[in-house]
Amino acid sequence: MPEDAHAQAISTLSGLGPLRVWSLLVTVFGDLAPDGSLDGPTLSSVMDGIGIRAEATRVALHRLRADGWITSHKQGRISAHSLTPKGQQDSLAARPRIYGRPDAEQAGAKLVLMPDSAPVLDPADFAPVAPQLYLCATDTTCPDDAMILDPDRFPAWLGHRIEPTALRQGYAALHSALNAIAADADRLRDLDARDTAVLRVMIVHTWRRLVLKHPALPRDAHSHDWKGHACRALATQLLDRYPRPTLDRLRAT
Amino acid sequence: MPEDAHAQAISTLSGLGPLRVWSLLVTVFGDLAPDGSLDGPTLSSVMDGIGIRAEATRVALHRLRADGWITSHKQGRISAHSLTPKGQQDSLAARPRIYGRPDAEQAGAKLVLMPDSAPVLDPADFAPVAPQLYLCATDTTCPDDAMILDPDRFPAWLGHRIEPTALRQGYAALHSALNAIAADADRLRDLDARDTAVLRVMIVHTWRRLVLKHPALPRDAHSHDWKGHACRALATQLLDRYPRPTLDRLRAT
Repeated sequence: MPEDAHAQAISTLSGLGPLRVWSLLVTVFGDLAPDGSLDGPTLSSVMDGIGIRAEATRVALHRLRADGWITSHKQGRISAHSLTPKGQQDSLAARPRIYGRPDAEQAGAKLVLMPDSAPVLDPADFAPVAPQLYLCATDTTCPDDAMILDPDRFPAWLGHRIEPTALRQGYAALHSALNAIAADADRLRDLDARDTAVLRVMIVHTWRRLVLKHPALPRDAHSHDWKGHACRALATQLLDRYPRPTLDRLRAT
Repeated sequence: MPEDAHAQAISTLSGLGPLRVWSLLVTVFGDLAPDGSLDGPTLSSVMDGIGIRAEATRVALHRLRADGWITSHKQGRISAHSLTPKGQQDSLAARPRIYGRPDAEQAGAKLVLMPDSAPVLDPADFAPVAPQLYLCATDTTCPDDAMILDPDRFPAWLGHRIEPTALRQGYAALHSALNAIAADADRLRDLDARDTAVLRVMIVHTWRRLVLKHPALPRDAHSHDWKGHACRALATQLLDRYPRPTLDRLRAT
């Protein structure tokens, strides 16, 4: 019963935490229509598959339009929605970190020491180690007054110092969910374009809201119980297994 | 009037801070008799030249004997004092940092990050930068659980973060004193062995009690107003100008 397996997968992923509809729409457009448009009925169908009601989607679209992130225009009786240039740019900037494959994670890490008076750096790019001391990816651009430090190794105690507990727990839960979906491949076979889109969107969304909250660091820099890298491997495997349907196939569902 | 210039130099150096007699004796033996012995009258003559009374010297000798640092034995009616093997070893260990020439200061610096639970490291070898983060010389041996960090450069703000104010002020005062003595070379000419010994001891002593309190770091790691490196240059120049008298010459004074 593919439908049941699919509903179960979506329910498992939805259970990982409250869904913010506007944020979910960012994932929907970024994954399904990064440079195209989604017409109203297709968008409603995908959102309905996730369990979001049409009214909530309308409110969220309104907010994203007000933020200059989405633009809508009428094509006859039907509305079509697409990313604005700003929306496309933001979406494109986040792609490497969301869709980067595990084998692309070879970059190292460096430490950054800032002067006492410096404002706190963005935790999305800089993991705090001590006051004014951060760990970030080797290729991260740092403020001019930073002192850059090249580590000889990553000691075992480092991971727990840089990992927010909420993120570590979030990854553990996502890891269980993705593992269950990966193990259910037999029952999640022959999905139609809509169900494929819904499953992809939920995988990308639950992964995206964790991975964009911390820098991409080597496995060695993290603790043994950090599932971030394992989640990337699973997310990549599943997105390969359920490739993005073309907008034509999605519309025709 | 060489005597007056000499008395003035000793007075200037004495004025840099209270002299602890046992600590002064450590300098006297380390500088004048690192592997020989000083007889009572010679030692008294040197200490008297610095303004230390015989009774205070006797008390300090007693303390250093009790600490296993000095040994004394009678040669006829005269006592002879010398470093014990432990005293020689401690003295030898401190020599590179005290007598190291400015051109030998080419070593770099590294940062050391310790786990949260680690005890505070010795400030003589590790300058604190942030909690559990230290700067030390490249060749310093670090604890096994340390994370070693190689800096790209030393930003301008670093020096004031690692320099205790008392040390920075201490070096500024020593720098003035040594400069005055260096400038008075004409009047400090043709000193006899005893006056040479007294001047050397006071230069080494006032320098030693600052330089052994912090790690030897590159000039670039310190602030603009840090006179530690300038003091090393002056101390080296003055100790070259007033070379250590042999014990024979010193005894005959």
